[in-house]
Amino acid sequence: MKREKLLKTPLLPISGIRVGAVSAGIKKPGRLDLVLFELAKGTNTAAVFTQNIFCAAPVSLAKAHLQSESPSALIVNTGYANAGMGKKGLKDASQVCEYLANQKQIPLSSILPFSTGVIGEPLPVERIAAAIPQLLGALSEDGWDKAAEGILTTDTEAKGLSLESELNGKKVCITGIAKGAGMIKPNMATLLAFVATDAEIAEPLLKQMLADAIEESFHAISVDGDTSTNDSVVMMATGKAGVAIEAASSDKKLFQDMLNQVFQTLAQSIVKDAEGATKFIEIEVKGAVSKAMAKEVAFKVAHSPLVKTACFASDPNWGRILSAVGNAEVEALNIDKVSININQIKIVSAGMRVEGYDELSVANEMQKPDIQIQIDLGLGSVVSRVWTSDLSYDYVKINAEYRT
Amino acid sequence: MKREKLLKTPLLPISGIRVGAVSAGIKKPGRLDLVLFELAKGTNTAAVFTQNIFCAAPVSLAKAHLQSESPSALIVNTGYANAGMGKKGLKDASQVCEYLANQKQIPLSSILPFSTGVIGEPLPVERIAAAIPQLLGALSEDGWDKAAEGILTTDTEAKGLSLESELNGKKVCITGIAKGAGMIKPNMATLLAFVATDAEIAEPLLKQMLADAIEESFHAISVDGDTSTNDSVVMMATGKAGVAIEAASSDKKLFQDMLNQVFQTLAQSIVKDAEGATKFIEIEVKGAVSKAMAKEVAFKVAHSPLVKTACFASDPNWGRILSAVGNAEVEALNIDKVSININQIKIVSAGMRVEGYDELSVANEMQKPDIQIQIDLGLGSVVSRVWTSDLSYDYVKINAEYRT
Repeated sequence: MKREKLLKTPLLPISGIRVGAVSAGIKKPGRLDLVLFELAKGTNTAAVFTQNIFCAAPVSLAKAHLQSESPSALIVNTGYANAGMGKKGLKDASQVCEYLANQKQIPLSSILPFSTGVIGEPLPVERIAAAIPQLLGALSEDGWDKAAEGILTTDTEAKGLSLESELNGKKVCITGIAKGAGMIKPNMATLLAFVATDAEIAEPLLKQMLADAIEESFHAISVDGDTSTNDSVVMMATGKAGVAIEAASSDKKLFQDMLNQVFQTLAQSIVKDAEGATKFIEIEVKGAVSKAMAKEVAFKVAHSPLVKTACFASDPNWGRILSAVGNAEVEALNIDKVSININQIKIVSAGMRVEGYDELSVANEMQKPDIQIQIDLGLGSVVSRVWTSDLSYDYVKINAEYRT
Repeated sequence: MKREKLLKTPLLPISGIRVGAVSAGIKKPGRLDLVLFELAKGTNTAAVFTQNIFCAAPVSLAKAHLQSESPSALIVNTGYANAGMGKKGLKDASQVCEYLANQKQIPLSSILPFSTGVIGEPLPVERIAAAIPQLLGALSEDGWDKAAEGILTTDTEAKGLSLESELNGKKVCITGIAKGAGMIKPNMATLLAFVATDAEIAEPLLKQMLADAIEESFHAISVDGDTSTNDSVVMMATGKAGVAIEAASSDKKLFQDMLNQVFQTLAQSIVKDAEGATKFIEIEVKGAVSKAMAKEVAFKVAHSPLVKTACFASDPNWGRILSAVGNAEVEALNIDKVSININQIKIVSAGMRVEGYDELSVANEMQKPDIQIQIDLGLGSVVSRVWTSDLSYDYVKINAEYRT
């Protein structure tokens, strides 16, 4: 599904953060596979990690390090996820941090490690360690584009964007990159996202703003319903722009909107690059009485393989949509109040097909690469949107052949 | 996936039940698409219906009729599901019952209607009504084989079996047929099953025995995680064998075992005929502290498209299995206690790959049409098994092309 570049260049530097990416030959030679972020003193960092109970070793370690002190470096490898490796996994992740700590003369616990790739194979610690001097040499404020490439695995394209705005007469900037093309679902998946700003944001507020941004972005996408062991989203605020975001200010709202836009674009980029996807599907549920209700319904539709194959086939099989809505665990649902539109064409009203329904015109709409399924529950006024992809032959192909 | 006949002939007649099947030309001419069961007076009937909130019109009507009196006839059509049709759907389903009630001179509410097929298209009531005289003429105690064929939709093969045993020196028999090949999931799906016995079982006990049989059969299978609007499982006991099953008797246990075997075979037949399936996968979760925990884990694995594509590819990607287990909503899970076997070969022990693991031998095992994934949670002693199929190119093909 290649219609637009997912990497919106140029990625702007964030004062206070240097980024480097090198090829350490972790799994395949010649591809960028090791990335470093170096954070200036005073940078505040917040992160959200996978909810998979069997989280990977680097996730366990990053969580612990983040609690103990403010991070001064993030190191990311692709190729191997260092998950399902027991105590050895923790030791390996720690050893990578130790090599970096020794080289940079910083505390071990100020380093957050991240890994993505195949589960259950050991991390080639020596190869990573050997590449660290070169990685330190590659650090630059302009390293974001290379980093966007260096964190990819099954992705076909790098993903990132920068937004710049003026607050109180001063420029502030947000730059973010992300990776992920499968195992994506509510509450995240094999996805990594690193977002930085030069605004100054105190840690408690940063955590809150990150949580808000994630709710309508990474927690609103689904490719295959699986949550991975390694998902991590990190938000860094260096404070170098001289603009402080305060909790109850109008600037806070402006900045949050900007942040949401960055997060939403990154999250949607992941769906657009989804394994084998030929369609980008937005499911908008309105008329709900709560966000939870709207999301429950939206995800039931987004997760239905029958709806996803119908989108692949450009088949307006609205019965499958209605059936998926009926699977939602929402007692208040009343079929007589449900309406369904596809790309603005009314199909179902009051739980029944509308009079004069013209299937062919909907089928034509569904040939387009963007499909919006709009579901009105007719119960309240809350809206929620989630984004997903279709289920194609290539989805099966990619997931059957990966690793072999 | 054709290795064995899913219809275990001969299907034995059940004294007190006559069965007929004809071609009413409902959707395509020339195929059996209308089935009738005629129940002798004194037959007790219990049923379990879909949990989809938007259940189809015939399901609503069958539920209401079943509450009002003992059924004397069941009428089943394929082609159209009569779901998503609003008030017209209810009127149509009722009209079919009315035609039959008039012809047979029985009360309307003693008839249970069942429909399966495409959602959202009106039921061709006139064509069904026109075929009813012929349907009545086709009734016979030996009609089960034709009925097994007459209830099919996307199935490639009829499914059914009979078991016969002796209780207190008298023969009792159970005959069951089922249909379903997609939209199958826990708590049922587009599946219909009709099971009858000549034993005498009072209605409250019949309900209980049906619920128990379903729990380890139709509630333990999954093809694509979708529950349909039309699922129904009906159990009839005519009492004509002169053997009464009493609640606390040893006969009850023997009969329940027999019933469970019939139900499990029918449920597994549906998975074996699953749309596009090339493998039959059993997921056995042991070492759980409760049935609920074991099933939650088993279904998380059974529903994972990543695990299902790996099975299709005969790829021992145990990391995907481990990750799927970690997605289960079970707080007590401890990765250090988890073991995983595939077809009896130990792969993961204490949450890590076993020493000397030989991937090739597992890959060879996974070439077989039957794959057993055994997961030991190491927490307790409860076991549960669920059955699913792999996710293949043909799954996408069938679901993308059905209806178009």
